Amino acid sequence: MKRILLIATGGTIASRPTAAGGLAPALTSAELLACVPELAEVCHIDALQLYNLDSTNIGPDQWIGMVHAVRDHYDAYDGFVITHGTDTMAYTAAALAYMIQRSAKPVVLTGSQKSIYNRDTDARNNLYRAVLYACHPAAWGVQLVFDGKVILGTRARKIRTKSFNAFSSIDYPDTAEFRDLRLVPFLPMPAGYGPVQFQDRLDPAVFVLRLVPGMRADIIPLLAGHCNALILESFGVGGLPGGDDGPLFAAVRDWCAAGRLAVFTTQVPHEGSDLAVYEVGRAAKALPGVLEAQDMTPEAAAVKLMWALGQAADRDEAARLFLTPVQFDLA
Amino acid sequence: MKRILLIATGGTIASRPTAAGGLAPALTSAELLACVPELAEVCHIDALQLYNLDSTNIGPDQWIGMVHAVRDHYDAYDGFVITHGTDTMAYTAAALAYMIQRSAKPVVLTGSQKSIYNRDTDARNNLYRAVLYACHPAAWGVQLVFDGKVILGTRARKIRTKSFNAFSSIDYPDTAEFRDLRLVPFLPMPAGYGPVQFQDRLDPAVFVLRLVPGMRADIIPLLAGHCNALILESFGVGGLPGGDDGPLFAAVRDWCAAGRLAVFTTQVPHEGSDLAVYEVGRAAKALPGVLEAQDMTPEAAAVKLMWALGQAADRDEAARLFLTPVQFDLA
Repeated sequence: MKRILLIATGGTIASRPTAAGGLAPALTSAELLACVPELAEVCHIDALQLYNLDSTNIGPDQWIGMVHAVRDHYDAYDGFVITHGTDTMAYTAAALAYMIQRSAKPVVLTGSQKSIYNRDTDARNNLYRAVLYACHPAAWGVQLVFDGKVILGTRARKIRTKSFNAFSSIDYPDTAEFRDLRLVPFLPMPAGYGPVQFQDRLDPAVFVLRLVPGMRADIIPLLAGHCNALILESFGVGGLPGGDDGPLFAAVRDWCAAGRLAVFTTQVPHEGSDLAVYEVGRAAKALPGVLEAQDMTPEAAAVKLMWALGQAADRDEAARLFLTPVQFDLA
Repeated sequence: MKRILLIATGGTIASRPTAAGGLAPALTSAELLACVPELAEVCHIDALQLYNLDSTNIGPDQWIGMVHAVRDHYDAYDGFVITHGTDTMAYTAAALAYMIQRSAKPVVLTGSQKSIYNRDTDARNNLYRAVLYACHPAAWGVQLVFDGKVILGTRARKIRTKSFNAFSSIDYPDTAEFRDLRLVPFLPMPAGYGPVQFQDRLDPAVFVLRLVPGMRADIIPLLAGHCNALILESFGVGGLPGGDDGPLFAAVRDWCAAGRLAVFTTQVPHEGSDLAVYEVGRAAKALPGVLEAQDMTPEAAAVKLMWALGQAADRDEAARLFLTPVQFDLA
């Protein structure tokens, strides 16, 4: 019988109504397990209550805490299931995919749109299938299990705020799907998995600048005191308003001339950016320090940049790490 | 025979390869019309070359220019077709929907993913159907026509950077669709349309702050010198990291205490925000000056805030305008 560690971090799946009328995390991991008694027939399962947070409050410090929890128990278990709020679950999934690399043992995130105490909750289904996946011989790597889908940690995005089918794999197939309780694996574990690599350094000083028509260029020097690297969410395939003789271009050039990275991505959810297509993008692409997120999700791009800056000794190494594919994040 | 005015603003639909290897707008409106000779059988069509810009370079000044072009020719034509690049077309569509209200005569945006000179272009189909829609007795209001869909200007979003089915109506039905060349209308013109209202004041000093896990609160006072109102793109249904005793909450409270608006929206593409659900959102919702974008698209929310600030004499009036539904932007 496989040994699974349940790591609880809070979220709706573990929430109860509060006196003030909102929902707040309140259930322990042991209470969660008691709600799904059939899990005892599937595997030996232990529970670790790491946090009890609304996922809006989960960030880089907690990602490091989760990496340490998996690392410290890695040899004692065959797989890990982390329960988590849905609001930042895609960020956490990406963070764990960069910080826990090449793990043949599955590290599975799950959660729910409704509390496990609701009559029509999705919590029991999601928790049960997350454990089923973690026990399956075809399971591998950092994945998110939700509403019957198994999604690469690097490709997951929350696309609906309320419905049960809240997550989607962006521009890449699902890793696997459940047809009722039967798992149908699509993506096999890539070659080279096995010796897991844990990395726990991050630089959270990354800012995502969403372009809006009419944006003034003086925002970019203003951000110099606030962050170490910039992600520019441009409009379509990419490019800067005003082209290469405009004030935004000059501001990005000055930003990079100070040794910093500026990563171009797109606010369009599918099919990624391609700065080479239009005049307004080609000159920006040629600047030293400018990178393209290509078809990475915004969540993966932000977290990968934090991770690359945390690992690297200089800008060139950070750029190299950022552009190195990890768990199918770049196609 | 109906009289249609084609207003050309540039974009891929009117682009040719440049010497440097990218694409840049180069075709005139007369050349565009010459590419679709069958239009002459549908209506009497005149052409006005208003701009010749990559739509990354289109913003509030050009929106005002388009409003003036429609206003100045409103009585002489039965409908208007504006050709436009795809990258900011959803912003322009929302802007025109707020600035040209209750128009019984259709104002139709269209464009293409490939230049009209490409063998496999979508430009001819889109331009032809945009004109067919503009001539149809069931047409009304500000709409975007693309890949056989007619989409409310307030609900359009670019969801794919490269494929022909680039635009989608977010969380609301299409206004109409083409089945081959036959138009099937879904949403009738609402009551009260007829006496058109043109409004041409905007305050472009709106900043969209996308939350990223680990974001420092000092970004908010930093933005005080840069913009007049803030849109906070939170993680899920809404809320601020740290809750109501955290530094981000204090920064938003101070921002609003200075008489400014802070609008909460979500980075999740579907089903909108709802600050009342979780503890982390409820206290923020209660602050004077805090609004919710609910299920408005990010494009519509940003542009509507510019429009509301441009019209209103004070914060309360701007808030009231922002929360007043326009052309089905709020459900």
